[in-house]
Amino acid sequence: MLIRPKAGILDPQGAAVERALPALGFAGVGNVHVGRLVELDVEDEAQLQPMCERLLANPLVEDYEVQLLDGGV
Amino acid sequence: MLIRPKAGILDPQGAAVERALPALGFAGVGNVHVGRLVELDVEDEAQLQPMCERLLANPLVEDYEVQLLDGGV
Repeated sequence: MLIRPKAGILDPQGAAVERALPALGFAGVGNVHVGRLVELDVEDEAQLQPMCERLLANPLVEDYEVQLLDGGV
Repeated sequence: MLIRPKAGILDPQGAAVERALPALGFAGVGNVHVGRLVELDVEDEAQLQPMCERLLANPLVEDYEVQLLDGGV
């Protein structure tokens, strides 16, 4: 699952990275957003959405996206 | 960029999620790993790898993967 800060919600990690990169000599960087990546094996993929809502993401301030990899049915 | 704990390296967030999910009634979950997702716009994609090495990931304990999305050259 990919979990991202919602657009318009403060993203302090992204802002910190965006400030730090030019200081390290990296120019031309913008629109930095830092989110989380959760990977797991699950028997019943219908559980993934409630898992995100109840534990993995904070639906008030984060969006999530479920991607099924090989072995996904 | 997708940043993951290396295989064999302690992943306390993953372990915590793996313990918490059964307590919430989600069964059949395993192999949980929690990493980070960093999204940004960059003019020169050759900068992405050194960025990961120097700021975004800890190469001692994390692996990273660069994915270019639409607009990537």
